[in-house]
Amino acid sequence: MNNFVNIAVIGTLDTKPDEFQYLRESIESLNAGCLIIDVSMRTMQEAMKVDYSCIELLGHSYNSNENIRNMDRKTAMPQVINCARTIVNNLYNTGKIDGIIGMGGSGGTTISAEVMRDLPIGFPKVIVSTLGGATRIADYVGIKDMLIINSVVDIAGINTLLKRVICEAAGAVVGAARSSKELQVEQKTKKRIAMTMYGLTTKGVVIARKHLESLGYEVTTFHATGQGGKAMESLIRQDFFDGILDMTLPEVNSYVLDVEYSNPGEGRLYGAIEKGLPCVLCPGAMDMVSTNNFLQYSDRVIYSHSNKPSHFRTNAEDLYKSGTYMVQVLNKAKVNCALLLPIKGLSEVDAPGKPMYNPQANKVLFDTLQNGISNPLVRVEAINCSVNDKEFALKAANCLDSLIKASTDQY
Amino acid sequence: MNNFVNIAVIGTLDTKPDEFQYLRESIESLNAGCLIIDVSMRTMQEAMKVDYSCIELLGHSYNSNENIRNMDRKTAMPQVINCARTIVNNLYNTGKIDGIIGMGGSGGTTISAEVMRDLPIGFPKVIVSTLGGATRIADYVGIKDMLIINSVVDIAGINTLLKRVICEAAGAVVGAARSSKELQVEQKTKKRIAMTMYGLTTKGVVIARKHLESLGYEVTTFHATGQGGKAMESLIRQDFFDGILDMTLPEVNSYVLDVEYSNPGEGRLYGAIEKGLPCVLCPGAMDMVSTNNFLQYSDRVIYSHSNKPSHFRTNAEDLYKSGTYMVQVLNKAKVNCALLLPIKGLSEVDAPGKPMYNPQANKVLFDTLQNGISNPLVRVEAINCSVNDKEFALKAANCLDSLIKASTDQY
Repeated sequence: MNNFVNIAVIGTLDTKPDEFQYLRESIESLNAGCLIIDVSMRTMQEAMKVDYSCIELLGHSYNSNENIRNMDRKTAMPQVINCARTIVNNLYNTGKIDGIIGMGGSGGTTISAEVMRDLPIGFPKVIVSTLGGATRIADYVGIKDMLIINSVVDIAGINTLLKRVICEAAGAVVGAARSSKELQVEQKTKKRIAMTMYGLTTKGVVIARKHLESLGYEVTTFHATGQGGKAMESLIRQDFFDGILDMTLPEVNSYVLDVEYSNPGEGRLYGAIEKGLPCVLCPGAMDMVSTNNFLQYSDRVIYSHSNKPSHFRTNAEDLYKSGTYMVQVLNKAKVNCALLLPIKGLSEVDAPGKPMYNPQANKVLFDTLQNGISNPLVRVEAINCSVNDKEFALKAANCLDSLIKASTDQY
Repeated sequence: MNNFVNIAVIGTLDTKPDEFQYLRESIESLNAGCLIIDVSMRTMQEAMKVDYSCIELLGHSYNSNENIRNMDRKTAMPQVINCARTIVNNLYNTGKIDGIIGMGGSGGTTISAEVMRDLPIGFPKVIVSTLGGATRIADYVGIKDMLIINSVVDIAGINTLLKRVICEAAGAVVGAARSSKELQVEQKTKKRIAMTMYGLTTKGVVIARKHLESLGYEVTTFHATGQGGKAMESLIRQDFFDGILDMTLPEVNSYVLDVEYSNPGEGRLYGAIEKGLPCVLCPGAMDMVSTNNFLQYSDRVIYSHSNKPSHFRTNAEDLYKSGTYMVQVLNKAKVNCALLLPIKGLSEVDAPGKPMYNPQANKVLFDTLQNGISNPLVRVEAINCSVNDKEFALKAANCLDSLIKASTDQY
């Protein structure tokens, strides 16, 4: 078994030559190779052997090494990032690297995350960051399987603590690269289904998932917290899935009502519709919106999932807006799909005696959907169940199974 | 070279048996050992061999296996966490583990982070978390060198994507454990100094750092963003450092003014004073407070470090409060220390023509300190420089060098 791996190292070698030298030595001491990609925006570093110097490459493309170095940082940075990303994508596509690592403060973390953006899930992407314990680290991780190591100390001079952290990071990227390389490329033996889930739709989702698994599908669930739906949409567009059971849709509310927290951004629901994938939608958890800022929503019912306010109840007006968005998307469907409406409740807490119970508001959603959908490819069915009822969950799962089988039979 | 490593695995085996089984197999396939610590709060899992079952251990200590299983989750969780932490600390202290890994959603991440809390920097601590891309992941990382892998998909059933992520994570923890084990335990050949830094005090801090390094010290810098100062205080209390050059103190403002963002919590400045360490303080960057919520501070001068508001200017009243806090701490000093006041400016932007220039407010700080400090062990010296001036930085560094030498001569 050949377990030699090559690691791409992204670094600003002008400001952190000693730190990257130590990282390189740490990686090489583990019998792995290094390809150094210098993303410095200022002077060239002669001290350390560099495999790719972005400013040199960009300088050449301008027929002058000096051009980019004289640019200000804000103008130069996107160019350097694009250059490094192109290099990294080429190295990945030609099988020349097995993992990648970056290291830095705010600037180095930004550059590293951007450069790694196109690399797929399962390809080790490590960043040693001074921001590892800061809330904004989430922005850099996004919807990727980033591996973030908090540096604790500044990356400013080599010292005992930083050595320990770099040593760990080198081991992590080399270890993950070896492990991922040895993972046999999975023969796809099962059709793949994506589902969306939430704490308060778990019961129904688990019943549907287990049923689909018993029918021979591989099921992947995504938490509908904004990032989850966004990750699912991205993977749908990469043709990863064969069918979608989108059973938990609070992200539609977040997007339509422009709630920053839990917002999946543009394009939610569009992936499956535009790709023409078999797809079943259920408005699970559309009784709520997750946020951490309730100022604008003081007139709504507020719900606390653990010990502090976590969600507000959507009212009739909210659900009219969300329903209208869904109608717009579904009317564009190019293949058969289904919309199943759980008339008796959208979540565990949307039931008689529970805090989010509001059948009047739900009726506005159901009416908007039933009246608005004019596309004959979309079957809309009201079911006299709650989203978490076994009957509803099995119906949704079987409905998707039928759509997938019918779509396969067509070919 | 013996590169066999043992990895502690923290898991809720009741809800995620298949996922942890896959993690275990992935670790073992890399020729590493696993010690499974089950932190389930409900039924026992017979399917998988467990090395330590917390509920069983707790059950025995209650003379009944049933007690804790019948408790509600909120009561049981702290007990299970304490039990697992004790097990892990014992395994670490007796050299039986070389790394640790946890995996889970909100609950699993909470438990894992708590269980790993006492383990030192440099000991690999990995968590595969569904919250890897969520802002609150920062709360779990805190001031430790946690290694967080965003799972992207829910940890709910084994599938192609989750396999790839678990495979990476297993490689990362085993690789980091091997690498850290091989890092020779550093012979401490140099005295260690901790410094605090900020973007706008970098110039002075770098001059002081390089000078101290030229005098033979090893210097570690911490970013004064709340977490940085907190990490430094924690390491001071672990006797890691021989002297402190606390040259950047906006965290004192954040704490005293109760600004959530950038707040180091209680105890800032106290570590060195209570430990009796040689220590030089300079009020660098006390002209500002970092926050993301300016509602309460609309009457202050607001500064944007990059492209959005990032800091507000402290006024006379703020600096009176912060100065009073510093006086309280410094009057408790048990050994010689120094407070150097850069009369001409607290940061790069506290200078004539710069946005934070306000000598009247600074004078309140200087007066409060000079009038308030009554402890003869604390030398207070006003220096006619800005904090970033070479003269000031060298004076601060030399002052600390003298204090360290004098304290060593005493013995």
